[in-house]
Formats: sequence, structure tokens, C-alpha cells
Amino acid sequence: MKLCRFDDGRLGLVEPGQVRDVTAALDVLPAYRYPLPPFDPLIANLDAVIARVRTVASHAPAVPLRSITLLSPVANPGKIVCAPVNYQKHLDEVRDNAALHHHNTATMAPIHTAGLFLKATSSLVGPGQGIALRKVDRRNDHEVELAVVIGRQASDVEAKDGYGHVAGYAIGLDITIRGPEERSLRKSPDSYAVLGPWLVTADEIPNPGALDLRISVNGDLRQSSNTKYLILGVPELIAYASSFYTLNPGDVIITGTPEGVSPIQPGDVITACIEQIGTMEVKVRAAGGVG
Amino acid sequence: MKLCRFDDGRLGLVEPGQVRDVTAALDVLPAYRYPLPPFDPLIANLDAVIARVRTVASHAPAVPLRSITLLSPVANPGKIVCAPVNYQKHLDEVRDNAALHHHNTATMAPIHTAGLFLKATSSLVGPGQGIALRKVDRRNDHEVELAVVIGRQASDVEAKDGYGHVAGYAIGLDITIRGPEERSLRKSPDSYAVLGPWLVTADEIPNPGALDLRISVNGDLRQSSNTKYLILGVPELIAYASSFYTLNPGDVIITGTPEGVSPIQPGDVITACIEQIGTMEVKVRAAGGVG
Repeated sequence: MKLCRFDDGRLGLVEPGQVRDVTAALDVLPAYRYPLPPFDPLIANLDAVIARVRTVASHAPAVPLRSITLLSPVANPGKIVCAPVNYQKHLDEVRDNAALHHHNTATMAPIHTAGLFLKATSSLVGPGQGIALRKVDRRNDHEVELAVVIGRQASDVEAKDGYGHVAGYAIGLDITIRGPEERSLRKSPDSYAVLGPWLVTADEIPNPGALDLRISVNGDLRQSSNTKYLILGVPELIAYASSFYTLNPGDVIITGTPEGVSPIQPGDVITACIEQIGTMEVKVRAAGGVG
Repeated sequence: MKLCRFDDGRLGLVEPGQVRDVTAALDVLPAYRYPLPPFDPLIANLDAVIARVRTVASHAPAVPLRSITLLSPVANPGKIVCAPVNYQKHLDEVRDNAALHHHNTATMAPIHTAGLFLKATSSLVGPGQGIALRKVDRRNDHEVELAVVIGRQASDVEAKDGYGHVAGYAIGLDITIRGPEERSLRKSPDSYAVLGPWLVTADEIPNPGALDLRISVNGDLRQSSNTKYLILGVPELIAYASSFYTLNPGDVIITGTPEGVSPIQPGDVITACIEQIGTMEVKVRAAGGVG
């Protein structure tokens, strides 16, 4: 099943060219009092939501896909975990280019040395909300990545059990200001994590390790690879991350970007595509504030 | 006012040697439906909670401080932002010791080059919950820090307006696995962010830039400094962080640690103290899992 969030927080069942407005299915989610839970309520209750979606879909109004504003399919991730250098050819291009590595050894290390980093959850938007660039005097890059949404709590999980903790997949954009600072700062401005166009439940993608992914800017192809080139695949990333901390339902792991990162500017239009997931278009603008 | 959270989520008004159980004041907080808000409900509604606490306190039962388990005074921070090298003498000690810097230039850079990092919100505990060390085969260090709790949303705020966005202060422990990986990984295992013993509202600490802070392990003094040695003070940190991303009510900024970081082991007892805030004791154990 493909589920999207759109417009003012509506829930959609994605069909070819249109979505069914199944917002009524959100009624199965409970209200929460303080303190709030550490998980995403939709993902933590996904089975119940899906069952309800199936019930209400046939009577749900259809809306053309082109008429809606797509939000992030996960509204409340507890954390957004990212793999910094998880394709060998991207590591090679970083090492070859001072504008990418800034003489910082941490940005040139292989993944088990570099570790994983976090993006602020406040950076998360959907494709319809666009990217608002800050620090436009510095180089800002696109990075397209396979995103994994955790469905079941994971702590010290072995790789062989990793898939059992996946709710589904989406496309993730890891927008990045280049420079010497910690990745968790440079990659965390508001709107620098784009998740979309929708959540594809795990049953529809039995092998996330063999998906073509690509991104173009204003129609020019910039990155094109396949998740078979991931150094750490989905279950290995879940094992590695969960050896450090607990992953909760709704946590997102962005698996790393292949070679071909390049700058983006206000006015650009990004098109990102991952096989078996879909395609999303994201507009780039300058942030309204000081920037 | 000093407000704590304790036991199974109760709210306490801290008085000398005891707390008043003012959990009834939480009734002013609304219930939330999906999607959940990006802020901490208690901090976002702090004025209303404080007014209600004043009403119920005189009839509230008193509980001895020594009999309660202290939780983090902020339950739902959207992010935990940390300053990595914000005391010159700590930067000096890192540069002088390969066990601390691991030949990683990012760990040896001054703060405007190093930037800020994030700790996972899933790492947050209160002092009564203790620290569960993972990766006990590696060096784990204590770091004591002044923690700032954001009270009002901040984006592109100037330093001169920084204090207007502060709800209050607490002691923060930034527990750290030493090694080459990204700080946001090594500092994010469950229980590696300790916040406590309570929230002191900003009106009680007019100058957070002149507070003695110290930490001892098993009675041995390890770190002792004063926040006047901070390179970036509280308002400057709010300005710097908010130039990258929006700070929301309940977001926590941990301002950096002074010199004297040193290893901790399961079985240790940490005592941390900041002037005008208080003292907290935190027990260290090994994590239950693979570690």
C-alpha cells in the first residue's frame, strides 16, 4: 500500500494518477496527553490504520495527484538517522574535492569510522512544501537517498532480523550546506530533510537492495545509481544504528547518497525518483529570513 | 520557580529538601491528536502551568526529595543541541590528547568551525534513571554542562534578543563514547543525555554567564569551572543555532563542557552541581543488551 499525507494533514491512498482521501481512517489513532510518546502515532498504529483504510477506501473521494500538496508521509519521527558515506563512489568524489571535504577528516572516512549522523526533526518537510535555502552564500547540495521508516522498536538488533523492523520506504533528500561544521548542523536547517512522495509499505518492496535511484535538477540528470551499491544495506544499517541507540516506530534512516552531488540554487526544480516508490518534484527557494 | 518531574510522571514544586506534588496542575495541558506538535507541551504552556501550580501548591502533599526518582524536567524536547568545544581549556585538552581527538580535525576545531551537534532525543533521561553505558570496551566520559531550555520559538534571532527565548535552566550531562565517529552518534545512546535535577525558571537566574559548575565521580572532583569561561554564552548560542534552524519550546541547548573530562565505569556515582540550580546524583551501570 502507498500512503501519503497532503494539504492540511489529510491521509491519502495513492492510486495511479490520483489519491483516495482516506482521512477518516485517522480516527483509529488515539489522543495523547503529556508526556507525548517517543514514536510516530501513525506508524506505531500502521496495521490498524491500513485495516481502516481498506474499509473506507471504496467510498473515499478521489483527488488528482497534480492538485494536492504532498507533506512528509511521517509527521512525527523521533529521529532522522543518516549514513554519511555509504556509496564507495560518493566517498571517492568527496575525497577528491576540497569543496566537499573541507580538509575535515571526518567527512572523508568510511562509514564505520564516520558513523551515522542525525538531522533535526524540525528540518522535515514533504515534497510539496519545497526547500528554503539558508546560507545561500555557501554551497548547498542535493543528495538523493533511499529512506527507511522503522515500524517496530529496535535495540541491539542483528542484521538478519533487520527487515522485521521496517514499516516501509520513501525517497529522502538530504540537503546539505557544505563546510567544516558538524553534519548534524549543516544538514538540519528547516526544510533540509525532504521525505516523500509517500510511504510504500515494506510488503511491496521485498528487496530494497536493488532499486534504481536518480535525481535531476531543472531536467539535468545529476545522480543515478542503484541501492545495490550501498556499502551497508538496510538490515546492516538497522543493526549498526541500533547497537548505539533504540530505534522507535517512525524513526527514519536515510541510507546515504551515491556519487554526483552538486549545488542547488533558489529557483531550481528537483525531480527525484526511486524504482518501486515513485517520483517527486521539489521546488527550491531562498529562506525568508536572514538566510 | 523550580519544577521537577518524578516517579511515574508526576509534577513537583521543589522546596528545600522536599517537593510538593502538584501533578494536578498538568490538567491545564490539552490532549493532542495526530500529528503531534513539534514542541514540548509543558514548556509551551509553562505560564499556564505555573499559574495553576501556584493555585494548587498550598494543598499539595509534600514528599521528601530523597524518596523520589527524578525524571528529565523536559519530557518531549524536539531537539537537543550541543556546543562541542565552548570552553577554551577543554579545547586545549582535546588538542593535547589523541584519546580525545582521534586525529579527527572536526573534534579539534573551535566552535564556529566545529558547529553545533545534535544528541538523539531518545537519549534523554533524568538523574534518577541513571546512565546505562554501551560500548563499555571503549572510553566513556562524563561532561557537565549548563543546559538551556527554549521557551519561545526562535529563528534568526539576534544575540541581544536571545534571553527572551529562554524558559529556564538545568544541569545537562553529555555522556560521550570517545572515538572517530560523528558526535551525534557517539553521544546519543539511550541515557547519554541526563537533564536535571529540575527546571529553574529563567527569572531566578538573571545571569547564567556567571555560574560555578562542577562534577565529581565517586567523590573525586573532576571538572570545576564557571560559565563565565564559555566562548559563546547563552544568547550567542541561541543566535548561532537559530541562524541554522528553528528552535521550538522545549528544545534544549547544552552549552558545552569545561576542561577535566574523564572516563566513567559501571558502578560509578556522579555528582553534578551548578550554582543557583542545584545538585544531582546519577548512577552509572552497564546497559543490559549486547553493549
